[in-house]
Amino acid sequence: MSSKPFALSIKVVIFDRARRCLVLKRSTKSKVNMGKWDFPGGKAEPGEKFDQALLREVKEETALKISLQHFAGGAESETPTRRVICLIMQARIKSGKVRLSDEHDDYAWVNLRDLTKVDLAPQFKAFAKAYSRGNR
Amino acid sequence: MSSKPFALSIKVVIFDRARRCLVLKRSTKSKVNMGKWDFPGGKAEPGEKFDQALLREVKEETALKISLQHFAGGAESETPTRRVICLIMQARIKSGKVRLSDEHDDYAWVNLRDLTKVDLAPQFKAFAKAYSRGNR
Repeated sequence: MSSKPFALSIKVVIFDRARRCLVLKRSTKSKVNMGKWDFPGGKAEPGEKFDQALLREVKEETALKISLQHFAGGAESETPTRRVICLIMQARIKSGKVRLSDEHDDYAWVNLRDLTKVDLAPQFKAFAKAYSRGNR
Repeated sequence: MSSKPFALSIKVVIFDRARRCLVLKRSTKSKVNMGKWDFPGGKAEPGEKFDQALLREVKEETALKISLQHFAGGAESETPTRRVICLIMQARIKSGKVRLSDEHDDYAWVNLRDLTKVDLAPQFKAFAKAYSRGNR
Protein backbone atom coordinates (compact mmCIF):
# COMPACT_ATOMS: atom_id res chain seq x y z
CA MET A 1 0.00 0.00 0.00
CA SER A 2 1.37 3.37 -1.05
CA SER A 3 1.90 5.92 1.71
CA LYS A 4 1.65 8.91 -0.62
CA PRO A 5 -0.92 11.49 0.43
CA PHE A 6 -4.31 11.49 -1.29
CA ALA A 7 -5.57 14.25 -3.53
CA LEU A 8 -9.08 14.73 -4.89
CA SER A 9 -9.65 15.63 -8.51
CA ILE A 10 -13.09 16.45 -9.92
CA LYS A 11 -13.75 15.74 -13.58
CA VAL A 12 -16.83 15.98 -15.75
CA VAL A 13 -18.44 14.39 -18.78
CA ILE A 14 -20.05 17.34 -20.58
CA PHE A 15 -22.80 16.63 -23.08
CA ASP A 16 -23.76 18.91 -25.94
CA ARG A 17 -27.26 19.12 -27.38
CA ALA A 18 -26.52 16.26 -29.79
CA ARG A 19 -25.69 13.98 -26.79
CA ARG A 20 -21.99 13.90 -27.62
CA CYS A 21 -19.45 14.26 -24.83
CA LEU A 22 -16.34 16.39 -24.66
CA VAL A 23 -12.80 15.01 -24.39
CA LEU A 24 -9.61 17.07 -24.29
CA LYS A 25 -6.16 16.07 -25.54
CA ARG A 26 -3.51 16.70 -22.92
CA SER A 27 -0.66 18.92 -24.02
CA THR A 28 2.61 17.26 -25.02
CA LYS A 29 4.06 19.47 -22.28
CA SER A 30 1.92 17.79 -19.58
CA LYS A 31 3.89 16.17 -16.77
CA VAL A 32 1.70 13.05 -16.83
CA ASN A 33 -0.24 11.37 -19.63
CA MET A 34 1.03 13.77 -22.27
CA GLY A 35 -0.91 13.43 -25.49
CA LYS A 36 -3.59 11.22 -23.93
CA TRP A 37 -7.24 12.22 -23.88
CA ASP A 38 -8.82 13.47 -20.71
CA PHE A 39 -12.01 14.95 -19.31
CA PRO A 40 -12.24 18.59 -18.22
CA GLY A 41 -11.73 19.31 -14.53
CA GLY A 42 -9.02 19.31 -11.90
CA LYS A 43 -8.24 19.76 -8.24
CA ALA A 44 -10.04 22.02 -5.82
CA GLU A 45 -8.08 24.83 -4.25
CA PRO A 46 -7.91 24.89 -0.45
CA GLY A 47 -11.34 25.77 0.93
CA GLU A 48 -13.02 25.61 -2.48
CA LYS A 49 -16.19 23.51 -2.78
CA PHE A 50 -16.02 20.61 -5.23
CA ASP A 51 -18.70 21.90 -7.56
CA GLN A 52 -17.30 25.43 -7.64
CA ALA A 53 -13.82 24.02 -8.32
CA LEU A 54 -15.19 22.00 -11.22
CA LEU A 55 -17.05 24.93 -12.77
CA ARG A 56 -13.90 27.06 -12.47
CA GLU A 57 -11.65 24.39 -14.03
CA VAL A 58 -14.10 23.83 -16.87
CA LYS A 59 -14.24 27.54 -17.59
CA GLU A 60 -10.44 27.80 -17.54
CA GLU A 61 -9.91 24.75 -19.73
CA THR A 62 -12.81 25.05 -22.18
CA ALA A 63 -14.49 28.48 -21.74
CA LEU A 64 -17.80 26.61 -21.42
CA LYS A 65 -20.49 27.28 -18.88
CA ILE A 66 -22.08 24.05 -17.75
CA SER A 67 -24.87 22.80 -15.54
CA LEU A 68 -23.94 19.90 -13.26
CA GLN A 69 -26.42 17.03 -13.31
CA HIS A 70 -25.29 13.83 -11.62
CA PHE A 71 -22.56 11.64 -10.24
CA ALA A 72 -21.11 9.69 -13.17
CA GLY A 73 -18.31 7.57 -11.68
CA GLY A 74 -14.78 7.62 -10.44
CA ALA A 75 -11.18 6.76 -11.18
CA GLU A 76 -7.85 6.69 -9.44
CA SER A 77 -4.23 7.11 -10.39
CA GLU A 78 -0.82 7.85 -8.92
CA THR A 79 1.48 10.73 -9.67
CA PRO A 80 5.08 10.78 -8.40
CA THR A 81 3.83 12.49 -5.21
CA ARG A 82 0.09 11.78 -4.86
CA ARG A 83 -2.62 9.14 -4.94
CA VAL A 84 -5.32 10.90 -6.90
CA ILE A 85 -8.96 9.95 -6.36
CA CYS A 86 -11.11 11.29 -9.14
CA LEU A 87 -14.82 12.05 -8.75
CA ILE A 88 -16.49 12.25 -12.17
CA MET A 89 -19.72 14.18 -12.64
CA GLN A 90 -22.08 14.49 -15.60
CA ALA A 91 -23.10 17.88 -16.95
CA ARG A 92 -24.71 19.59 -19.90
CA ILE A 93 -23.64 22.72 -21.73
CA LYS A 94 -25.34 25.94 -20.70
CA SER A 95 -23.49 28.31 -23.01
CA GLY A 96 -20.22 29.00 -24.79
CA LYS A 97 -18.01 27.46 -27.45
CA VAL A 98 -14.90 25.46 -26.67
CA ARG A 99 -11.73 27.58 -26.41
CA LEU A 100 -8.76 25.61 -25.07
CA SER A 101 -6.14 26.72 -22.56
CA ASP A 102 -2.49 25.76 -23.02
CA GLU A 103 -3.10 22.61 -20.92
CA HIS A 104 -4.67 20.91 -23.95
CA ASP A 105 -3.78 20.66 -27.64
CA ASP A 106 -7.08 19.48 -29.08
CA TYR A 107 -10.66 18.58 -28.25
CA ALA A 108 -13.36 16.32 -29.66
CA TRP A 109 -17.06 15.70 -29.20
CA VAL A 110 -17.64 11.96 -29.25
CA ASN A 111 -20.70 9.79 -29.18
CA LEU A 112 -20.92 7.86 -25.93
CA ARG A 113 -20.68 4.54 -27.78
CA ASP A 114 -17.29 5.64 -29.14
CA LEU A 115 -15.85 6.76 -25.80
CA THR A 116 -14.01 3.47 -25.25
CA LYS A 117 -12.25 3.92 -28.63
CA VAL A 118 -10.67 7.20 -27.50
CA ASP A 119 -7.03 6.97 -26.32
CA LEU A 120 -7.94 8.11 -22.82
CA ALA A 121 -5.46 8.43 -19.95
CA PRO A 122 -5.28 4.92 -18.45
CA GLN A 123 -7.19 5.70 -15.25
CA PHE A 124 -10.33 6.55 -17.27
CA LYS A 125 -10.55 3.37 -19.34
CA ALA A 126 -12.58 1.34 -16.83
CA PHE A 127 -14.83 4.30 -16.16
CA ALA A 128 -15.44 4.87 -19.89
CA LYS A 129 -16.40 1.23 -20.37
CA ALA A 130 -18.83 1.13 -17.45
CA TYR A 131 -20.28 4.56 -18.11
CA SER A 132 -20.85 4.14 -21.85
CA ARG A 133 -22.49 0.77 -21.21
CA GLY A 134 -24.67 2.13 -18.39
CA ASN A 135 -25.96 5.10 -20.39
CA ARG A 136 -26.98 3.52 -23.69
CA MET B 1 -33.25 20.06 -12.62
CA SER B 2 -33.01 21.02 -8.98
CA SER B 3 -31.34 24.32 -8.21
CA LYS B 4 -30.34 23.33 -4.67
CA PRO B 5 -26.65 23.74 -3.91
CA PHE B 6 -24.41 20.69 -4.06
CA ALA B 7 -22.68 19.17 -1.04
CA LEU B 8 -19.99 16.49 -1.02
CA SER B 9 -20.16 13.60 1.41
CA ILE B 10 -17.38 11.04 1.76
CA LYS B 11 -18.30 7.52 2.89
CA VAL B 12 -16.33 4.34 3.29
CA VAL B 13 -16.72 0.58 3.11
CA ILE B 14 -14.49 -0.69 5.92
CA PHE B 15 -13.35 -4.31 5.83
CA ASP B 16 -12.31 -6.31 8.85
CA ARG B 17 -9.79 -9.15 8.72
CA ALA B 18 -12.55 -11.66 7.89
CA ARG B 19 -13.46 -9.60 4.78
CA ARG B 20 -16.74 -8.44 6.24
CA CYS B 21 -17.78 -4.81 5.83
CA LEU B 22 -19.21 -2.42 8.38
CA VAL B 23 -22.67 -0.89 8.20
CA LEU B 24 -24.22 1.45 10.75
CA LYS B 25 -27.89 1.85 11.63
CA ARG B 26 -28.95 5.49 11.58
CA SER B 27 -30.51 6.75 14.77
CA THR B 28 -34.28 7.05 14.95
CA LYS B 29 -33.53 10.70 15.73
CA SER B 30 -31.82 11.22 12.36
CA LYS B 31 -33.37 13.92 10.19
CA VAL B 32 -33.16 11.76 7.06
CA ASN B 33 -33.27 7.98 6.57
CA MET B 34 -33.91 7.31 10.24
CA GLY B 35 -33.47 3.63 11.06
CA LYS B 36 -31.92 2.83 7.68
CA TRP B 37 -28.44 1.37 7.35
CA ASP B 38 -25.58 3.53 6.26
CA PHE B 39 -21.83 3.56 5.74
CA PRO B 40 -19.50 5.51 8.03
CA GLY B 41 -18.44 8.97 6.85
CA GLY B 42 -19.85 12.42 6.30
CA LYS B 43 -19.18 15.89 5.00
CA ALA B 44 -15.85 17.68 5.02
CA GLU B 45 -15.58 20.84 7.06
CA PRO B 46 -14.55 24.00 5.19
CA GLY B 47 -10.90 23.69 4.15
CA GLU B 48 -10.63 20.06 5.28
CA LYS B 49 -9.20 17.52 2.80
CA PHE B 50 -11.53 14.69 1.79
CA ASP B 51 -9.39 11.92 3.24
CA GLN B 52 -8.80 13.73 6.53
CA ALA B 53 -12.52 14.45 6.79
CA LEU B 54 -13.29 10.78 6.26
CA LEU B 55 -10.79 9.57 8.87
CA ARG B 56 -12.20 12.10 11.35
CA GLU B 57 -15.83 11.09 10.70
CA VAL B 58 -14.97 7.40 10.98
CA LYS B 59 -13.23 7.98 14.28
CA GLU B 60 -16.17 10.02 15.61
CA GLU B 61 -18.79 7.51 14.47
CA THR B 62 -17.02 4.20 15.10
CA ALA B 63 -13.82 4.84 17.12
CA LEU B 64 -11.95 2.83 14.45
CA LYS B 65 -8.67 3.75 12.88
CA ILE B 66 -8.64 2.79 9.21
CA SER B 67 -6.33 2.75 6.25
CA LEU B 68 -7.85 4.08 3.02
CA GLN B 69 -7.28 1.85 0.01
CA HIS B 70 -9.27 2.71 -3.09
CA PHE B 71 -12.17 4.45 -4.75
CA ALA B 72 -15.20 2.19 -4.38
CA GLY B 73 -18.09 4.06 -6.00
CA GLY B 74 -20.57 6.84 -5.56
CA ALA B 75 -24.14 7.76 -4.78
CA GLU B 76 -26.38 10.80 -4.72
CA SER B 77 -29.39 11.97 -2.81
CA GLU B 78 -31.36 15.09 -1.96
CA THR B 79 -32.03 16.59 1.42
CA PRO B 80 -34.54 19.43 1.88
CA THR B 81 -31.73 21.92 1.22
CA ARG B 82 -28.92 20.12 -0.65
CA ARG B 83 -28.06 17.81 -3.52
CA VAL B 84 -25.58 15.47 -1.91
CA ILE B 85 -22.91 13.78 -4.04
CA CYS B 86 -21.33 10.92 -2.17
CA LEU B 87 -17.82 9.65 -2.89
CA ILE B 88 -17.39 6.13 -1.46
CA MET B 89 -13.94 4.79 -0.62
CA GLN B 90 -12.75 1.34 0.45
CA ALA B 91 -10.64 0.86 3.56
CA ARG B 92 -9.38 -1.73 5.99
CA ILE B 93 -9.23 -1.63 9.77
CA LYS B 94 -5.95 -0.59 11.29
CA SER B 95 -6.96 -0.72 14.95
CA GLY B 96 -9.81 -0.27 17.39
CA LYS B 97 -13.17 -1.81 18.20
CA VAL B 98 -16.47 -0.28 17.13
CA ARG B 99 -17.90 2.19 19.63
CA LEU B 100 -20.89 4.10 18.26
CA SER B 101 -21.72 7.78 18.63
CA ASP B 102 -25.32 8.92 19.19
CA GLU B 103 -25.75 9.24 15.40
CA HIS B 104 -26.23 5.46 15.14
CA ASP B 105 -28.20 2.89 17.11
CA ASP B 106 -26.52 -0.30 15.92
CA TYR B 107 -23.81 -1.74 13.69
CA ALA B 108 -23.18 -4.96 11.81
CA TRP B 109 -20.33 -6.64 9.98
CA VAL B 110 -21.73 -8.20 6.83
CA ASN B 111 -20.30 -10.39 4.14
CA LEU B 112 -20.11 -8.56 0.85
CA ARG B 113 -22.51 -11.02 -0.80
CA ASP B 114 -25.13 -10.04 1.81
CA LEU B 115 -24.74 -6.28 1.40
CA THR B 116 -27.71 -6.02 -0.96
CA LYS B 117 -29.94 -7.69 1.67
CA VAL B 118 -29.25 -4.91 4.19
CA ASP B 119 -31.96 -2.22 4.49
CA LEU B 120 -29.60 0.51 3.31
CA ALA B 121 -30.59 4.14 2.83
CA PRO B 122 -32.05 4.27 -0.70
CA GLN B 123 -29.14 6.14 -2.31
CA PHE B 124 -26.76 3.25 -1.53
CA LYS B 125 -28.78 0.42 -3.07
CA ALA B 126 -27.40 0.74 -6.60
CA PHE B 127 -23.89 1.14 -5.25
CA ALA B 128 -24.23 -1.96 -3.05
CA LYS B 129 -25.41 -4.03 -6.00
CA ALA B 130 -22.60 -2.95 -8.32
CA TYR B 131 -19.92 -3.06 -5.66
CA SER B 132 -20.78 -6.47 -4.23
CA ARG B 133 -20.93 -7.89 -7.76
CA GLY B 134 -17.64 -6.30 -8.78
CA ASN B 135 -15.73 -7.56 -5.73
CA ARG B 136 -16.70 -11.24 -5.61
